[in-house]
This record gives sequence, C-alpha cells and structure tokens, in this order.
Amino acid sequence: MKQSKEFLLHKEIAVETVGNGVTRQIFGYNSQILLAKITFEKGSIGDVHQHPHVQTSYIESGKFEVMINNSKQILEKGDGFFVPGDTDHGVVCLEAGVIIDTFTPAREDFLK
Amino acid sequence: MKQSKEFLLHKEIAVETVGNGVTRQIFGYNSQILLAKITFEKGSIGDVHQHPHVQTSYIESGKFEVMINNSKQILEKGDGFFVPGDTDHGVVCLEAGVIIDTFTPAREDFLK
Repeated sequence: MKQSKEFLLHKEIAVETVGNGVTRQIFGYNSQILLAKITFEKGSIGDVHQHPHVQTSYIESGKFEVMINNSKQILEKGDGFFVPGDTDHGVVCLEAGVIIDTFTPAREDFLK
Repeated sequence: MKQSKEFLLHKEIAVETVGNGVTRQIFGYNSQILLAKITFEKGSIGDVHQHPHVQTSYIESGKFEVMINNSKQILEKGDGFFVPGDTDHGVVCLEAGVIIDTFTPAREDFLK
C-alpha cells in the first residue's frame, strides 16, 4: 500500500460523500494507520457496524450519541471514544459536527 | 498493556504538563494505537525528535510551522500531517492551538 503525503492541506483533500448527510476526508496514512475526518449534518447517522481495525476517535465539534458494544453515551466537542476490533459501534448526530477517526491497520476500503 | 475506557469525557482526562507552554491529554488507546491531544501556547515548541512509531496528526486549531525530514510547511486549523517511523519532526506554534496526534503502535512512554 502506498502512503500519504507528509503535509496535508485541507483545501487539497477531496471531500467524499458517504451519504445521508455524512462526508469524509482522508488525511495521513500508510498500511499501519489512517486518519479520517468525518463531517455529520444534524440528524445524520453512522450506522452500527464493526470491523477488525482498532479505532480511536476525537470529537472536534458537535454532539453525538455514540454506541459501542450496546452501551450508549452522549459525547460533545473535546470528548473521545475507543472501539476495540470486531466490536459493534455507531453514532447518531445530535448537533452538526466533526469526528476525527483513526484506525489501525489502515482502512483500505477508504482508499479505493 | 491495558486499554483505555471506551467513552472518554474531556472533563475526566488529566491534563499533563509537558513543559514550556505545552500540555497533553491521552484519549483512546490499546497496545496498537494511541490518540493524544496536545495544546500549545503561542511560541511554544515541539522539539525536533523521532520515534519508531508511525504518526498521523490533525490540526484542530491554531497555526504551526511543521518540520518533517527537513521540509517545513505552515499548517493551520483543518490541515494534517503524516510522519513515517524513525523520521525527524517538530513543530513551532505560531498561533495558540491544538494538535491531535495518533500513533501506531501506542506511545507507551506517554502512559507512564
């Protein structure tokens, strides 16, 4: 797998439509790690899903109901969450905002 | 190595003094990945250093001169950078702000 550039200017990064009020930008990565910025409109949903990748996330802005392994928590700007591999998780956006998601290994499905 | 809690409320996370205008909070981690929020006062410096961990970072706020492997770039809110393992890097804070740093594997030295 290739590797990202070292300097990543937000104006140069494609904004991908994930759908239903959610967009994504891919920041720095190689095969071992990948950082993605996910932007949510109010009311949009990150469907419950799981993947073998370990995920650590930071709420840049907004307010979300985050579900991990059947536990729910309201998280706001400045909070974070951690998702072990192969663990159900999802979010509901209560106030428009941005989540920084980082994965190990890289989400190769995000790079296609 | 242990693993962080799944929900990480910023009010509950210790703010560690790194020194010289820099503080750090540790968010979600296990042995494979670790996310840290680093807050810089204007004029503070993240000294040039290197580590075997691969790093992908996101500028939450502020303005920084970022050096990676002898290349320099001014980065602002919304930009990012990627540091391969064993590669010199450092930052100079031009306007007070926050960088979200994520590492693989975890920075065990941050957990002591």
